[in-house]
Amino acid sequence: MMKEFFNVDTIEGVLSNAPTFSPVQTETVPLAECQGRVLAENITSDIDIPDFQRSTMDGYAVNAASTFGASEANPAYLSIQGQIPMGVRPHFTIGPGQAARIATGGMLPEGADSVMMIEHTETLDETTIEVYKSVAPGQYVIEKGEDIHHAEAAIDAGTRIRPQEAGLIAACGIADIQVYKRPMIGIISTGDEVIAVDQVPETGQIRDINTQTLSGQVISAGGVPVTFGIVKDNRDELIESCRRALELTDMVLISGGSSVGARDFTVEVLELLPDTEILAHGISISPGKPTILARSSTKAIWGLPGHAASAMVVFDVVVRPFIEQIAGQKGPTRRFPVTATLTRNLPSAQGRVDFVRVRLDRKNGTLVADPILGKSGLIRTMVKADGLVAIGMNTEGLEKGSPVEVMPI
Amino acid sequence: MMKEFFNVDTIEGVLSNAPTFSPVQTETVPLAECQGRVLAENITSDIDIPDFQRSTMDGYAVNAASTFGASEANPAYLSIQGQIPMGVRPHFTIGPGQAARIATGGMLPEGADSVMMIEHTETLDETTIEVYKSVAPGQYVIEKGEDIHHAEAAIDAGTRIRPQEAGLIAACGIADIQVYKRPMIGIISTGDEVIAVDQVPETGQIRDINTQTLSGQVISAGGVPVTFGIVKDNRDELIESCRRALELTDMVLISGGSSVGARDFTVEVLELLPDTEILAHGISISPGKPTILARSSTKAIWGLPGHAASAMVVFDVVVRPFIEQIAGQKGPTRRFPVTATLTRNLPSAQGRVDFVRVRLDRKNGTLVADPILGKSGLIRTMVKADGLVAIGMNTEGLEKGSPVEVMPI
Repeated sequence: MMKEFFNVDTIEGVLSNAPTFSPVQTETVPLAECQGRVLAENITSDIDIPDFQRSTMDGYAVNAASTFGASEANPAYLSIQGQIPMGVRPHFTIGPGQAARIATGGMLPEGADSVMMIEHTETLDETTIEVYKSVAPGQYVIEKGEDIHHAEAAIDAGTRIRPQEAGLIAACGIADIQVYKRPMIGIISTGDEVIAVDQVPETGQIRDINTQTLSGQVISAGGVPVTFGIVKDNRDELIESCRRALELTDMVLISGGSSVGARDFTVEVLELLPDTEILAHGISISPGKPTILARSSTKAIWGLPGHAASAMVVFDVVVRPFIEQIAGQKGPTRRFPVTATLTRNLPSAQGRVDFVRVRLDRKNGTLVADPILGKSGLIRTMVKADGLVAIGMNTEGLEKGSPVEVMPI
Repeated sequence: MMKEFFNVDTIEGVLSNAPTFSPVQTETVPLAECQGRVLAENITSDIDIPDFQRSTMDGYAVNAASTFGASEANPAYLSIQGQIPMGVRPHFTIGPGQAARIATGGMLPEGADSVMMIEHTETLDETTIEVYKSVAPGQYVIEKGEDIHHAEAAIDAGTRIRPQEAGLIAACGIADIQVYKRPMIGIISTGDEVIAVDQVPETGQIRDINTQTLSGQVISAGGVPVTFGIVKDNRDELIESCRRALELTDMVLISGGSSVGARDFTVEVLELLPDTEILAHGISISPGKPTILARSSTKAIWGLPGHAASAMVVFDVVVRPFIEQIAGQKGPTRRFPVTATLTRNLPSAQGRVDFVRVRLDRKNGTLVADPILGKSGLIRTMVKADGLVAIGMNTEGLEKGSPVEVMPI
């Protein structure tokens, strides 16, 4: 009755397939809609940013040499040449012993090389100030091109755009940008026992959780979930749903079903699809071992576990990098783990990577990771969780009090 | 020429104003659109989840007592009563010495209390199996109501919905949910030197960066940015823009301008708005000291620094919690810092909290935080940054090699 998994693979083995899938098409969007998108063009600046010497303080534009040796006891006296208006080139120059009022963001006049903070001056009369401190050349000034130089590479294609990247693109004068389309990810739930959210379960039935959790994860990975509803454990129906999903989307996730032999049933269906090859049948992780990855023509199609928490873990560990790949991202997202102290011993089997759900808390100023007990069939364990701790393939377990790395989930 | 800040306040002082602003209205959305939204109703379950004893393994439903003492040397023999179909109540019961084939997710028949993994059995003939191991009562079973009980509180109003919360809401049978509207956040850029992205700067001019960076941050905080363009340093124009923004949105952010006395100019405008009170004029942080917070009738209105990096830091440190507050969120988002080792000494002034941009990297297996040098007027410093390190009010600086907490940005 039981079939063995044929090609149980490691996480690294599964992930090594990602670069063989090509990114989706590109499109041009207005800058205002670029948040979270992946750049499909290299961004360079059409100008020096800033393209003039710019003050970073309210004060006086001066030639630094005019202030050398100035102190409370021995102030320098500078004559005011005028006030520098914002957004235009000053129409006067600054010579030795001269100064001009300047605001943050203003352009330094010719001859000035630094800004004297207003706090270190006193106005004597309309045309004279006393200066109590010296400034160094370049002080409180942003040099021409200091942020970025004309024609310099600013952001590379393949970068996911955060608010700051959007800001730099704006500075470069690019109002419409070429980005990769958001990958469309098809989601199919299977199982004779699975019913829609708006139905009331009869005994033995459960509502479809995976369509919701996987849709949310697809959105968080920058994709667009396209749901194909619930398919009963019927080979022809599942084949038909897969065909339709492969036609309409860029990647397909099948979750469940949990019927006897369902895993092999999914494999059977995948093998019946035209031009389809099983790349992995089983991954050495827990939860999530019975995961299947196949390539159907140019697209990835996944068989994920039916248990909601298992499917979420598999998504985060292996599916997400594939979505980032076809989204055009170069390299994985810069995500960094939170270090915390484990509150109890965690046993683990060797030969697989265990992912343990933990809740983070601050106790006496220290971050602690509290393992959440509960079966991977319980969605509530994920609701309580802030992140996952991976226990390595060759580790027998982790001891209470050890530092662990937690990936937020 | 210089005006002092009147009410320089601490971060905590500024944040203590947040709870005085009320959440926005609520609306009902389909579950598929709830990702990232804030729940406006308490979620309870209409049923036990699951509402039956459910198998977590492929194997045999048994009465555990029938397997006690079973071993390789001394197997137990069980007679097969049938196969349990998925999604329905089994029509037979299990007595001592009996078993029924069950798949993951299947319902245990009456009389069964546990599941024997298929790996520990051998089929002798159509109606008999050998069992090589004992199971404990309840093993490989999810009990009725183990995930959540009928009428039990599942998720509280005020929770921001992640994929797992969406999954639990689905399990509770709620297809349409009441959430808070996304707060609309008005964004106004000011400054005579500021021009639109699609214009080519003349000498002394710079393109508007803050509209983009703040829009992106508003989206990341769960709000909807509503941009009001660039307002020159003209009192009447700024008053008019503020009035319009206050009328159309739930909170307003004014960034810049950097003209002489611009801060006080913003204060002057805020004081001229009807029913408006300045709550903070200056915050003891760097960058970002010249931040203004006011209440105009029921809405918060902010004067943010003109420097792009400064405005971003202020947004993250103080504005974001106000958006979360009016978004209906109960308590701040569960964000946890990344611990890393500082790669160089960081001096800091006492009496203010310094926020230093850092880039994170893994070196020899350790996370290191590399401070990014560069003025807060340079947007590129934020593009290089992965996060911020706060240097406390009463700290003179941090030493190279110290552990620091990095908040991702």
